[in-house]
Amino acid sequence: MRRLIRSLPHIESYITHARPQFERLLGELVEIPSISMDPAHAPDIHRAGNVAMQFLRELGAEAHLVKTTGYPVVSGGWHTGRNHPTLTIYNHLDVQPAQEPEWRREPFSFFTEDGVYHGRGTTDDKGPALTALLAGRYAIEQGVPINIRFLWELEEEIGSPHFADAVRQSALVPRPDSVLVSDTIWISRHRPALPYGLRGMLVARLSLRTGDHDAHSGLTGGAARNPLAELCALAAACGDARTGRVKIPGFYDDVLPPSRAEVRNFLASGFRVRQFMRAHGLQALRTTDPAEVVRRIWSAPTFEVHGVAGGYTGPGVKTVVPGEAELKVSMRLVPHQDPRKIFALLRRFVARQNPHVRVEAAGMLRPFRGVFSGPYADAARRAMRVGFGKEPAFIREGGSIGAVMVLQEAWRVPIVLMGLSLPEHGYHAPNEHFDWGQASGGMRAFAAYFNEVAKLRDRQ
Amino acid sequence: MRRLIRSLPHIESYITHARPQFERLLGELVEIPSISMDPAHAPDIHRAGNVAMQFLRELGAEAHLVKTTGYPVVSGGWHTGRNHPTLTIYNHLDVQPAQEPEWRREPFSFFTEDGVYHGRGTTDDKGPALTALLAGRYAIEQGVPINIRFLWELEEEIGSPHFADAVRQSALVPRPDSVLVSDTIWISRHRPALPYGLRGMLVARLSLRTGDHDAHSGLTGGAARNPLAELCALAAACGDARTGRVKIPGFYDDVLPPSRAEVRNFLASGFRVRQFMRAHGLQALRTTDPAEVVRRIWSAPTFEVHGVAGGYTGPGVKTVVPGEAELKVSMRLVPHQDPRKIFALLRRFVARQNPHVRVEAAGMLRPFRGVFSGPYADAARRAMRVGFGKEPAFIREGGSIGAVMVLQEAWRVPIVLMGLSLPEHGYHAPNEHFDWGQASGGMRAFAAYFNEVAKLRDRQ
Repeated sequence: MRRLIRSLPHIESYITHARPQFERLLGELVEIPSISMDPAHAPDIHRAGNVAMQFLRELGAEAHLVKTTGYPVVSGGWHTGRNHPTLTIYNHLDVQPAQEPEWRREPFSFFTEDGVYHGRGTTDDKGPALTALLAGRYAIEQGVPINIRFLWELEEEIGSPHFADAVRQSALVPRPDSVLVSDTIWISRHRPALPYGLRGMLVARLSLRTGDHDAHSGLTGGAARNPLAELCALAAACGDARTGRVKIPGFYDDVLPPSRAEVRNFLASGFRVRQFMRAHGLQALRTTDPAEVVRRIWSAPTFEVHGVAGGYTGPGVKTVVPGEAELKVSMRLVPHQDPRKIFALLRRFVARQNPHVRVEAAGMLRPFRGVFSGPYADAARRAMRVGFGKEPAFIREGGSIGAVMVLQEAWRVPIVLMGLSLPEHGYHAPNEHFDWGQASGGMRAFAAYFNEVAKLRDRQ
Repeated sequence: MRRLIRSLPHIESYITHARPQFERLLGELVEIPSISMDPAHAPDIHRAGNVAMQFLRELGAEAHLVKTTGYPVVSGGWHTGRNHPTLTIYNHLDVQPAQEPEWRREPFSFFTEDGVYHGRGTTDDKGPALTALLAGRYAIEQGVPINIRFLWELEEEIGSPHFADAVRQSALVPRPDSVLVSDTIWISRHRPALPYGLRGMLVARLSLRTGDHDAHSGLTGGAARNPLAELCALAAACGDARTGRVKIPGFYDDVLPPSRAEVRNFLASGFRVRQFMRAHGLQALRTTDPAEVVRRIWSAPTFEVHGVAGGYTGPGVKTVVPGEAELKVSMRLVPHQDPRKIFALLRRFVARQNPHVRVEAAGMLRPFRGVFSGPYADAARRAMRVGFGKEPAFIREGGSIGAVMVLQEAWRVPIVLMGLSLPEHGYHAPNEHFDWGQASGGMRAFAAYFNEVAKLRDRQ
């Protein structure tokens, strides 16, 4: 049994008694295949929203649906006093599809075995959502002077297209004093992680047409332009594939390099190169120096080629000169890069390299950089220590979470990212699971965090 | 009526009388869908072979099938004397598929309209084959001292995989003194063409695997290698896409540039840049200078990217770092480049550029360069003049014909390429047709050529 701080009375017995309810709610939610990507599951998404509302009410909280032109957002919580600080907790209840042949059990049939919870959505993000819900009830029962509100999205897995709509409805989704997002992954089970940064993104399509259709390379080759070859050259001009260095002039101008303290934190995170490679099925890296690997994935921008369409991509070789081709690329961005400015740099560079290439943006997301020091960071650090008995690592994440940027831009309040998922839980992968160790530790950590945050208004 | 040389008595009345027979035989042959690419048409291929044998016998020639491990080759002709020169005429009786929605009539239903013959295979290559057959009978009836043999292949459209097998059976396919191949296209209907060169080819697949599967570009991008981006860089290193210049060291070492006389011939061929672009649906060329265009397509080697497989090529953009990628390329080769040597240069260059890339050859064909001066060239020139009343152009072709290389390497005798097809006839295209103008002119030209070649043994 871990040492508790004085302000969490009876937390261990609360958690023990909450376990059957947690498992019942999680089971009910996991068995709803709320796959937002698949329109055929629209009724399931709506059902998940309604069931989640019932859960909030069952626990004594207020609950309602915030309508958007897409799926609704579940909003609710406990209001304890006008002078108490308000914390909004973000989770999402939609899930990835689960069609991988590697699934050993039916993905939407909930199964518990030795404290491990199997099923699509258990770790991403239904388990963490319910963990926060039960921790919230504990805080309210204990009279912690805090207003806790939940925002449960149903479109996270499709890029949060209507989340800003929902957040803009201030009568239904009031602005809080701070936000807690629980949808991230630890570096290893031995080290809690508090990511305070997310990379931004610019997705683009570069296309070139030089013929009405594919032509015969014997009859035309040498004189005919080859759009595939020209786009390969353009990709090579934009970025050095071996080193990863982006060659678009001005690309690095606004990059804020991580501070020494940040780099120290990255290295202390428990990050292991071998484990990283295994987790993602990587056979080779551009560098195997751990410090350089974490710098690259968490705090450096990229230029990535995702696909080259055009010509012939089936088995064997068909010797055509393609009539058109398209390069699908993205750039992950870091503070203080601005995706609109980067897009302008890309367009200018492409126009100089190959004026016939058409450049289209297919998505933009600003990078996010929260706090890794100060009262909220300290509160989160102490809460993780209480929850899991281990010092958390302040890291960044290489990915992008659209909803975080929506909240950041709508409210401009501190956002803390406190995830409970482990790398082995199988985020977006077959045989997804969650476990009671992370749930019970999470309840303890969240309860401690609420307690800490409740004190902050006084201190600031 | 054209002026005839003295040695072709009654040729015009022969041609007039031959017309109904020519049309009957062509109709019968066109209505057999001898699609070598489609195994379901195997019975049709065999039927076409048997029907062709009957035709030879109907015209008083000997005929037999040369068996291979694939489809047979039809061989036959007239033997007139041991001391007479022997000429082998190559054609093929298999055809391309005809599934294009643009066909205005049933492609395997023969239709004649104002001297135009409609149907798949009319121009490629059944019409020219029968034109040569009827011209042969004329020469034999006239007592021209020549042995004429026909070799009709049934696998040309699938790359002549068993043709060398057939040619090696010298008891059934004896070595001639020269070869006539009739399977090429004029530059325009106003100018007969005598191509005396074909480009060779090296087809290769360059592949790179850096992961077990596609990875998440947010979680791994920057540290993970990107095989698509690396292969794009490799393509750019191998060839300059804008100029067409190949950058593999040593690539141009053995290139024999066309002589001044050849370039003069190219320019006198009736080649028009606009027509070339329209014929192949090209919207832009690397150069619009006619001399440079013909130099590039007929006498310069290339490096062409045909496809880049790997990652995501569907609609939109999926931001994966691919686990593997493959670059499909080919190099058209010119005299005296050797595809095996070029393959060795490619492998060495790739090993230096990116040692993890795997290089596989997917096809090799030597370039062909026949004669464009001397007795056979003169004979062909005079014959074309007799046939069509116009001076022929000596050009090269940018494509590659496998059977020509087989004949060249098996026999080392002069090969003359005397095609009858016009650009508008629709080679490998919908609404293929042939016409009596080209057939009648072709009979006259072939008859004149047989007459010329018969005299050559004495002269040489």
